[in-house]
Amino acid sequence: MSEKLPTRSENYAEWYTQVILRAELADYSPVRGCMVIRPYGYALWENIRNALDRRFKETGHVNAYFPLFIPMSFIEKEKQHVEGFAPELAVVTHGGGKELEEPLVVRPTSETIIGYMYAKWIRSYRDLPVLINQWANVVRWEMRTRLFLRTMEFLWQEGHTAHATAEEAEEEARRMLDVYADFLENEAAIPVIKGQKSEIEKFAGAVRSYTVEAMMGNKWALQAGTSHNLGQNFAKAFNIRYLDRNNQLQYVWTTSWGMSTRVVGAIVMVHGDDQGLRLPPRLAPIQVVIVPIWRQDVDKTRVVETAHRVAATLQEGGIRVHVDDREEHTPGFKFNEWELRGVPVRIEIGPRDLEADQVVLARRDMPGKEGRRTVPMAEVLSGVQVLLAEVHQSLFAQAKRFLEENTHEVSTYEEFKEVLATRGGFIRVFWAGSDEDEIRIKEETKATIRCYPFDHDGSEGTCFYTGKRTTRVAIFARAY
Amino acid sequence: MSEKLPTRSENYAEWYTQVILRAELADYSPVRGCMVIRPYGYALWENIRNALDRRFKETGHVNAYFPLFIPMSFIEKEKQHVEGFAPELAVVTHGGGKELEEPLVVRPTSETIIGYMYAKWIRSYRDLPVLINQWANVVRWEMRTRLFLRTMEFLWQEGHTAHATAEEAEEEARRMLDVYADFLENEAAIPVIKGQKSEIEKFAGAVRSYTVEAMMGNKWALQAGTSHNLGQNFAKAFNIRYLDRNNQLQYVWTTSWGMSTRVVGAIVMVHGDDQGLRLPPRLAPIQVVIVPIWRQDVDKTRVVETAHRVAATLQEGGIRVHVDDREEHTPGFKFNEWELRGVPVRIEIGPRDLEADQVVLARRDMPGKEGRRTVPMAEVLSGVQVLLAEVHQSLFAQAKRFLEENTHEVSTYEEFKEVLATRGGFIRVFWAGSDEDEIRIKEETKATIRCYPFDHDGSEGTCFYTGKRTTRVAIFARAY
Repeated sequence: MSEKLPTRSENYAEWYTQVILRAELADYSPVRGCMVIRPYGYALWENIRNALDRRFKETGHVNAYFPLFIPMSFIEKEKQHVEGFAPELAVVTHGGGKELEEPLVVRPTSETIIGYMYAKWIRSYRDLPVLINQWANVVRWEMRTRLFLRTMEFLWQEGHTAHATAEEAEEEARRMLDVYADFLENEAAIPVIKGQKSEIEKFAGAVRSYTVEAMMGNKWALQAGTSHNLGQNFAKAFNIRYLDRNNQLQYVWTTSWGMSTRVVGAIVMVHGDDQGLRLPPRLAPIQVVIVPIWRQDVDKTRVVETAHRVAATLQEGGIRVHVDDREEHTPGFKFNEWELRGVPVRIEIGPRDLEADQVVLARRDMPGKEGRRTVPMAEVLSGVQVLLAEVHQSLFAQAKRFLEENTHEVSTYEEFKEVLATRGGFIRVFWAGSDEDEIRIKEETKATIRCYPFDHDGSEGTCFYTGKRTTRVAIFARAY
Repeated sequence: MSEKLPTRSENYAEWYTQVILRAELADYSPVRGCMVIRPYGYALWENIRNALDRRFKETGHVNAYFPLFIPMSFIEKEKQHVEGFAPELAVVTHGGGKELEEPLVVRPTSETIIGYMYAKWIRSYRDLPVLINQWANVVRWEMRTRLFLRTMEFLWQEGHTAHATAEEAEEEARRMLDVYADFLENEAAIPVIKGQKSEIEKFAGAVRSYTVEAMMGNKWALQAGTSHNLGQNFAKAFNIRYLDRNNQLQYVWTTSWGMSTRVVGAIVMVHGDDQGLRLPPRLAPIQVVIVPIWRQDVDKTRVVETAHRVAATLQEGGIRVHVDDREEHTPGFKFNEWELRGVPVRIEIGPRDLEADQVVLARRDMPGKEGRRTVPMAEVLSGVQVLLAEVHQSLFAQAKRFLEENTHEVSTYEEFKEVLATRGGFIRVFWAGSDEDEIRIKEETKATIRCYPFDHDGSEGTCFYTGKRTTRVAIFARAY
């Protein structure tokens, strides 16, 4: 940590990578495109996982586990699916010293193998709905990778549900999008735009894909979670049928939805600043770091003892706390390190605080005096609880303001290009273009349709590109 | 579930498979050797995982995640390691539509790739010990597979630690064996024998392997968890060194330890009976099932309502409870189904119970009147809590007695073969044989040395095979 962190304005990509490496969230691995999630990053992922898993269970889902390997022939059964995934597959051709008769694909996603099992398990309307989620690793061969955002192997959850009617499947797909939005806003402090993907951007095999889009610190978009209404595409490819109440065989309707370790990248990019990470309190592996401060050895023992006593109080109150009593580093060094690592609240305890029976709380998200407050020792737990809630609100409000300030409306393609080139951000426009128009815009500007936002009120306007009247609104942006 | 479950004495292997399939713990997958862990089985695994993870964190470990793919050249760096694992590897030769320059191995275990990263991370004695655990899937190419016990892909945890001294590494390896034993006895109600593996049976790359061995219902042994002192073997292969306090470069000492979804198989085989599973209460996904009983429609509403009210009371008390209010099945059908699925306690609530303001609790592990007790409605939570504790104790005591009754001592090889052929079980003997003797005994009797048990008091005796005097005691058995 000798060299200074690059600032975001100097080099955003390098800032991002350096923050992750120096904060020890992750590291490069010797296998090209694969990363190592280090303990601090994995603890963050565990908190993400627990917050999501709780929501999945509250909405009636159960977890299961399906095989890592999928026969190549399965992938080929759904036409759009194989077109989308074939270029990204890792293929096992040898096992136990022999060449395999049929190559096995390392799962890039599990619709096919799960579809096969559902066809076996589902017999009657009484077996529906099937509401299963899987926590797993998946592999997609990527040439240009970036820590957390795009790695060959990543961790994720994939929900796979089967329903008796189209309406129920649509409801499920929308419900899970709401779960993702709720998680992102209330746990990760990330405001999102909910909407539908364009035909070009939708999942390979879906009828409709829904997405939650967030704005990163460089004003690019990141798709933070997706939920797909798969209609009967996979039901027909894998013959998943049930006997309805009238004893008629019907195909089921399925959905799938996923969120991955990408979210860690989003947290870094939405909240991080030039000093490093700023972790949202509800997900932070360490919510409070206590730095005991002493000059003379006589003070050391009692200051360190008090630090551990305060830590015990906080821990009993359900706070994730760490005491940094290392002797080889100065308080200033520690302050910088924990700022880099994004711990939301720091507690300083020195000899004078002991005498005054108080501690100093300092917020990561608010530098200087403004972010410091002194609380009586007896009130440290409630003081910390209040502060963590404030930090969450403040991070969310800041990100929300940033999103709003950097969302622009334009009425011509010239203006569109001008805004993208000079100001960046999301561009919200009326849109009546074709798939070809969308592709052309991407080629010319690198901006893609992130979604057709749900919050559009249905009013009519003029498409900025074709000049046609339309009620459809799209959000364009550069995206990860 | 039309056909009757085979009894254990009729066909143990078939009983095992049928219990797992019918209880819906797991299912076969279309990929040879891979299984699907169904929601009920996965919920059991989640409870196992949580109980272990809590213990790992209490002993100072943190979780991380390392890549699924390992370069073939890494596996080859430790001589014993590659010899042990080469025949079991799944190999990725193609990615993104191209042949790879160096094939990638799907991890069979992660000592090598983690060793590589530790060499990068560890610089000084201040960085030690490194205490990392990983929850992951691994793949070992198996020709003859069996649900949970031996599958091509399985889920597990693998701890990997690095230490400054040989003593610390040894302590760690022994500590984690104790953690496994504590988990098995206090969560899974499985008594175990702790001991050291023979040279022939130890982990490929270890200096010493420790094991916890359990006795299954057919008197075979199952290695339920292992902990390895790896000495400096991997430190030297991957050049993992640190500067000690005297500024001298030293190799670290490493350990690894793992427990897998095999444990689910052990739970089935240790506790299961001819009616199906008997799940240990602390791990059971459903600890209590409530079956409301009604004959006439007038009774139905209030009985079902009461069932849900009792369920709410139990849930608030931290009990995992399920109300089976399906209308298409009789109470008798439900009793059988939940017995098959091993739920430790069943609550029956009928109209007469409502009038008497009481419920009937029935134990899965004790059939008939003996296992039933009536408790006042107001005491249902405490009644269930007491009963669950009793069921745990009783399952443990029963398994312990079975282990003891089926552990035999012999003084000659003739007697050894005789006992194995007629009575089975564990054979505890003085042992001074060579590796070759051990292999010959395996070829002739299929029995292997499960471990040199720690509980031997050090006294001297005569080896049953060589006639030599020795203080070493071994336990032989047929094993999964």
